[in-house]
Amino acid sequence: MRVFRESYMAISKFIINALDRISPEEVGSLVDFLIKTYNEGKKVLIIGAGRSGLVGRAFAMRLMHLGFSVYVLGETIVPALNPEDVVVAISGSGRTKLVVTAAEVAKSVGARVISLTTFPDSPLGKISDLVVRIPGRTKVSAEDDYNVRQLVGIYEPLAPLGTLFELTAMVVLDSVIAELMQRLGKTEEDLKRMHANIEI
Amino acid sequence: MRVFRESYMAISKFIINALDRISPEEVGSLVDFLIKTYNEGKKVLIIGAGRSGLVGRAFAMRLMHLGFSVYVLGETIVPALNPEDVVVAISGSGRTKLVVTAAEVAKSVGARVISLTTFPDSPLGKISDLVVRIPGRTKVSAEDDYNVRQLVGIYEPLAPLGTLFELTAMVVLDSVIAELMQRLGKTEEDLKRMHANIEI
Amino acid sequence: MRVFRESYMAISKFIINALDRISPEEVGSLVDFLIKTYNEGKKVLIIGAGRSGLVGRAFAMRLMHLGFSVYVLGETIVPALNPEDVVVAISGSGRTKLVVTAAEVAKSVGARVISLTTFPDSPLGKISDLVVRIPGRTKVSAEDDYNVRQLVGIYEPLAPLGTLFELTAMVVLDSVIAELMQRLGKTEEDLKRMHANIEI
Amino acid sequence: MRVFRESYMAISKFIINALDRISPEEVGSLVDFLIKTYNEGKKVLIIGAGRSGLVGRAFAMRLMHLGFSVYVLGETIVPALNPEDVVVAISGSGRTKLVVTAAEVAKSVGARVISLTTFPDSPLGKISDLVVRIPGRTKVSAEDDYNVRQLVGIYEPLAPLGTLFELTAMVVLDSVIAELMQRLGKTEEDLKRMHANIEI
Repeated sequence: MRVFRESYMAISKFIINALDRISPEEVGSLVDFLIKTYNEGKKVLIIGAGRSGLVGRAFAMRLMHLGFSVYVLGETIVPALNPEDVVVAISGSGRTKLVVTAAEVAKSVGARVISLTTFPDSPLGKISDLVVRIPGRTKVSAEDDYNVRQLVGIYEPLAPLGTLFELTAMVVLDSVIAELMQRLGKTEEDLKRMHANIEI
Repeated sequence: MRVFRESYMAISKFIINALDRISPEEVGSLVDFLIKTYNEGKKVLIIGAGRSGLVGRAFAMRLMHLGFSVYVLGETIVPALNPEDVVVAISGSGRTKLVVTAAEVAKSVGARVISLTTFPDSPLGKISDLVVRIPGRTKVSAEDDYNVRQLVGIYEPLAPLGTLFELTAMVVLDSVIAELMQRLGKTEEDLKRMHANIEI
Repeated sequence: MRVFRESYMAISKFIINALDRISPEEVGSLVDFLIKTYNEGKKVLIIGAGRSGLVGRAFAMRLMHLGFSVYVLGETIVPALNPEDVVVAISGSGRTKLVVTAAEVAKSVGARVISLTTFPDSPLGKISDLVVRIPGRTKVSAEDDYNVRQLVGIYEPLAPLGTLFELTAMVVLDSVIAELMQRLGKTEEDLKRMHANIEI
Repeated sequence: MRVFRESYMAISKFIINALDRISPEEVGSLVDFLIKTYNEGKKVLIIGAGRSGLVGRAFAMRLMHLGFSVYVLGETIVPALNPEDVVVAISGSGRTKLVVTAAEVAKSVGARVISLTTFPDSPLGKISDLVVRIPGRTKVSAEDDYNVRQLVGIYEPLAPLGTLFELTAMVVLDSVIAELMQRLGKTEEDLKRMHANIEI
């Protein structure tokens, strides 16, 4: 279990160190966007492919617990987007075709696009109204990959493909939930009351 | 963004400290189970509700990248289970009714059940062939909750409901993937080749 | 393509003949239930496993187009059920364990359960507030199976397992949508406006 | 319940009459493609958005029962496509952006694309290796819409948006399953053995 242990340590250190490389301004803008969306009764739509899509769903579930009107692209219940609705797109590389296509369509109907990505200059980053940069090795660029490895000393078998991006994004988004709870004056009891009682 | 920052630090410290409270023997048995399943060409079925179910899906995706025959309960393609197939069930409380029901049905057709839960004495834990204990506050027990809080000093608004369990389980399972890569002699290139190229 | 042709004819004749075996009173009660739910701003939750679950999702999508607050068990966004919320459960046999378990939990929190099933005396039928009987061969009972075959003259290879139930249920539910459109004064344009414009 | 009854009759007559407007050659080519895929151990990937995607999933479930290696885009377990793998894309209009984008990516990695659509000259139809035309009103074209209405005499409130396409496609695909059963020598018992016993 040596590799398990090394991987666990490498991943959790990566997450803890990532905080210094995350912009409080960008996260603050995300929080402000979401609170405005909540107050104005607008919708939030989460988009993402693969494991990034799963991280997005975990975030969506908590937003629902907080009382947001929130939806996930690809699920059954996806309403029409209107201007001022917000799309949160998650893609480490910022190049996932289906995500970029969906974000473009969202822009074309007047929705705002917020993206979580490692690459602000990616196709997704470029069309976004707000980019929240999340550190991570990503599956596209060998060179960036090398730089990240230098920084954090994680060799690939310990955290393959988008693992570091996905886990860091999930911790960021769960911390955004804590901030939203405080700003919206919600307690854990409030969240529990919104949780699917059929799944308990 | 004070709460965001405190939450991020609390969560990532919880994860890093959790390693000491995870049994290498239990994780080792999980890895052995999975390698046996792989070598014998048996199936793995992942079950879980809510955010635990999403953590299970993220694990399933990586098992697929490693070449496992893996499925997720609730998705379209779920085959019949045969004896010696393995079910991995994820539930912090170990009491989620739909998960316990599914695990019971799995047992009745001869499959092995491995569970990741905070409570080995829960209904899910009791019917499992192997329990991998994952620390976490959980949404059921105020008392246990209190104990965990004492241990790790996280107050609820910083990580509501099952957040700590879910994130810790995800890091554990991603570290299991690293161990499996090494044991099965797989490189990141191998994983990349298995990844859905239609989602790139 | 002889079997294709025979199967197509057998299935479509089964559907057309099924109308005489569907109770207008039962369907009428379903419509009344749904309109009451709509008017009172209560939620509808759809539950079903396998292909019956997919039929339920197709119905859910149209209810959303009509302006209902509707959710699907197993998807990311599933809210807590309150008394007077309505669960629509779909199961040909009425014995699918995960569906029966979910319906029982729904009852225990005060929700009403409406079921679409071939067997009103099944475990699901017995706990339902309303049963809408849908004809169909089902995968459980050889005897009923025989009776249905006599009635409609379809031999199994032409429509295996739950096929006839699932297709008939889908046509019933799409006709319920037409009735709801008329009663709620909705036009096709109204539905189109609600449709996910990101999927167009 | 007048509208319910009229809608049920209109829909089921549409389905029964549609058989004359479906090309046995096109369906035969689809069957041949699938049998070749089965015999060569290649994969089938189903893609579709909205209710067309649900019809695709219902087909995928039966292909799995027949022993195919079949996957659904958007679900957790989606493998890399290789040359000679087959994509079945379902879109009434043939213009759904996310479906067209996915089909293009599939082509670019060498997979074959078979589409079920009402419009062979649509973007989806044009890039397909095989088009199976399915009659139906569709949500895009007022003119074609008018023509279909003349043919089948269904006014919109009785079957809004893609309803007729979706239901007809589902009956076509279930009849394809019957043909495949006979050609592959599979009995209903064989299918039942493959069905998810955890969902029974």
